[in-house]
Amino acid sequence: MFSNLTPESNQRPGNDPIFALSEEARSKISNGERVIDATLGCLFDDNGELLVVDAWDEVAAEIQPSMVAGYAPISGVQKFNHAIIEDTFSDFQQLKDISVSSATPGGTGAVTSSIVNFLEPGETLISPHLYWGPYNTISSLNGRKLTTYKTFTSDLDFNLEGLDQAVNQTSKENKRVLTVINSPCNNPTGYSLSSSEWDGVGEILTKASRVSRNSLIIDLAYFKFGPKNNHWLKVVERICDDVQVLIAWSGSKSFTRYGARVGGIIALNRDADSRERLKRAFSYSSRGTWSNCNHMGQFIATKLITDDRYKEQVDTERNAIINLLQDRVDVFNDQAQKYNLIYPRYEGGFFVTVFCKEPQAVAKRMRDKNVYLIPVKDGVRVGLCSVASRDISELVEVLNSCL
Amino acid sequence: MFSNLTPESNQRPGNDPIFALSEEARSKISNGERVIDATLGCLFDDNGELLVVDAWDEVAAEIQPSMVAGYAPISGVQKFNHAIIEDTFSDFQQLKDISVSSATPGGTGAVTSSIVNFLEPGETLISPHLYWGPYNTISSLNGRKLTTYKTFTSDLDFNLEGLDQAVNQTSKENKRVLTVINSPCNNPTGYSLSSSEWDGVGEILTKASRVSRNSLIIDLAYFKFGPKNNHWLKVVERICDDVQVLIAWSGSKSFTRYGARVGGIIALNRDADSRERLKRAFSYSSRGTWSNCNHMGQFIATKLITDDRYKEQVDTERNAIINLLQDRVDVFNDQAQKYNLIYPRYEGGFFVTVFCKEPQAVAKRMRDKNVYLIPVKDGVRVGLCSVASRDISELVEVLNSCL
Repeated sequence: MFSNLTPESNQRPGNDPIFALSEEARSKISNGERVIDATLGCLFDDNGELLVVDAWDEVAAEIQPSMVAGYAPISGVQKFNHAIIEDTFSDFQQLKDISVSSATPGGTGAVTSSIVNFLEPGETLISPHLYWGPYNTISSLNGRKLTTYKTFTSDLDFNLEGLDQAVNQTSKENKRVLTVINSPCNNPTGYSLSSSEWDGVGEILTKASRVSRNSLIIDLAYFKFGPKNNHWLKVVERICDDVQVLIAWSGSKSFTRYGARVGGIIALNRDADSRERLKRAFSYSSRGTWSNCNHMGQFIATKLITDDRYKEQVDTERNAIINLLQDRVDVFNDQAQKYNLIYPRYEGGFFVTVFCKEPQAVAKRMRDKNVYLIPVKDGVRVGLCSVASRDISELVEVLNSCL
Repeated sequence: MFSNLTPESNQRPGNDPIFALSEEARSKISNGERVIDATLGCLFDDNGELLVVDAWDEVAAEIQPSMVAGYAPISGVQKFNHAIIEDTFSDFQQLKDISVSSATPGGTGAVTSSIVNFLEPGETLISPHLYWGPYNTISSLNGRKLTTYKTFTSDLDFNLEGLDQAVNQTSKENKRVLTVINSPCNNPTGYSLSSSEWDGVGEILTKASRVSRNSLIIDLAYFKFGPKNNHWLKVVERICDDVQVLIAWSGSKSFTRYGARVGGIIALNRDADSRERLKRAFSYSSRGTWSNCNHMGQFIATKLITDDRYKEQVDTERNAIINLLQDRVDVFNDQAQKYNLIYPRYEGGFFVTVFCKEPQAVAKRMRDKNVYLIPVKDGVRVGLCSVASRDISELVEVLNSCL
């Protein structure tokens, strides 16, 4: 018996808790038990079937194998690069004009590209304290630090003061600071920043950029499912000469093709030479981790974004999914308010976190009643993406009774 | 104009030379010029069409979207994990019994997983001096070093003495050493290690493992195209209690689906607890870079490896491709020997490197005669994977005349 793993690699945790809980729920279901499973991270219809956008498969069926069998360029298929910029900025032509992009394996890859290119080892990523786990994993694996601030004020508004302090402190200590904002439909809290909160983020980072090089990565994983509010784009327009704005674009949820690993990083810079450097940096780091990305996935996503017929079809299909999800959100809000549950403003998206003491114990008590969800920091994460509307009032009732 | 890229990221090189030369060749071809293009890294038939294994698409056509639309597990689909172990070790049951694997985006991802898990920052990857560029990119991006030794002896045998010195020196300096061997059909040299050379590699690493923790990554990118010699597996059996053996498995060439990013890392360890730690380490580093991998690609590759009907079909299709390539190799060897070109033993595979002085100048002179290939260290790389047999004698003639 021997191990050549580095000491850190030799001590990695086992199966992640989300996966383990999902497995347990699934196993009960296949044993014929009735279970409400709110652990999952994909959209399921009310019969427990994975929701898929059919337009994806229709494009797939038209592809000649030789069109996508070869390597995609390291930075991504050029049309794909344009398409994701189009998809992100739509009417904001000025932003499109100063954007470059590079393909990545899902949004995860875009976060990785940001961290390795905009922070040196030892420098710091700043995130709210309720965050998507891989922010920490990516930082840690790559020798970068993660600093957090309390996500919400006592009124459950976004904690701009906390962000301000974290950014200022880190700006004093380091040459570079990278801040991540996952909005709309934050995972795990469900929160979408308001217009004035986006203004606040912009001001804080612009101010800090006088002290150190501040970059902002906006994680758009769930952006098709958020409130129709494009104020954040106006903030991006306003700050992009001082703050390096980065977008983690993901096709996983937008096209319900989580497994296709289609994503990209977008970076804005008014200077053409700087844009070229950005492109080269992304290309180099791609080559130095995963090389090129899923060619077929890029091809299909491009069609769905740029071909009028498919675009319309995707809109129709996606709107039906959004409506289904929105129904669940509405039912949840109704029920949760009945019991005075404490949770942040929840306007849409896959998840919401209900705050509670001893989340592990609460989740355990709920499991004993066959309701499965994910204990997180300060609360339990309810994945409405996988719960039928008809089951939500029971879920909330059980949750309330287990607090 | 501003840049928040780290100083290193701000100075990355532009488009890689291979891509630029391929583009130039393609542009001439589309202008109606006759060009022999030996720059490419994929298999093309004699009419310049990308060769594809149809079985892949036949499986694809049978897939229900909901089977692969969701995320694959971070470590990969379990059946895929088994399948790539089966594909690699076939009759070597003992090796299969002590293997774990994890999905990665192509062979590149497997090399990345090896480097970040078996070397600490500052430690060293050892490679022959003629190597596939990303070994350096991955090491450098992740803060690891790359040390090289001269690939061949003056007789153009594999330079075991060079390997021995590099491994010994590094073993004295560091706790951990990672050695990469890309054989059979090395990119760029075309070389496949002989049985006795594999014995030598095994002895060197076993001996060095008394001094430091030695790991070996065998890059199998082209292993379906090499000589039918499984002696390396016997060496793996012999050394795997002292040396951490890792396999970079890739489906890119085996199934001619370069763009699908289907790969995996396999690690051998006789101890079940150690295997569990290996699995966790790979899972953690995947989550910390690209998360999960192409679900559909894993599904299809699994079918092609494990389903008897498809397995047979793949064998038939692949053998036809191998025969086509072998014809080219034979013609090349005939012609090159006529001119006494100097190049290592070339028994099969996509590439061969012909040694020469001033490779850049040689390649330039050849381009002026519309023959395109890739200048590398000490020679020019000829990609027979993309050159029709009928064009090879002309290619060799031009090469010889440009030396």
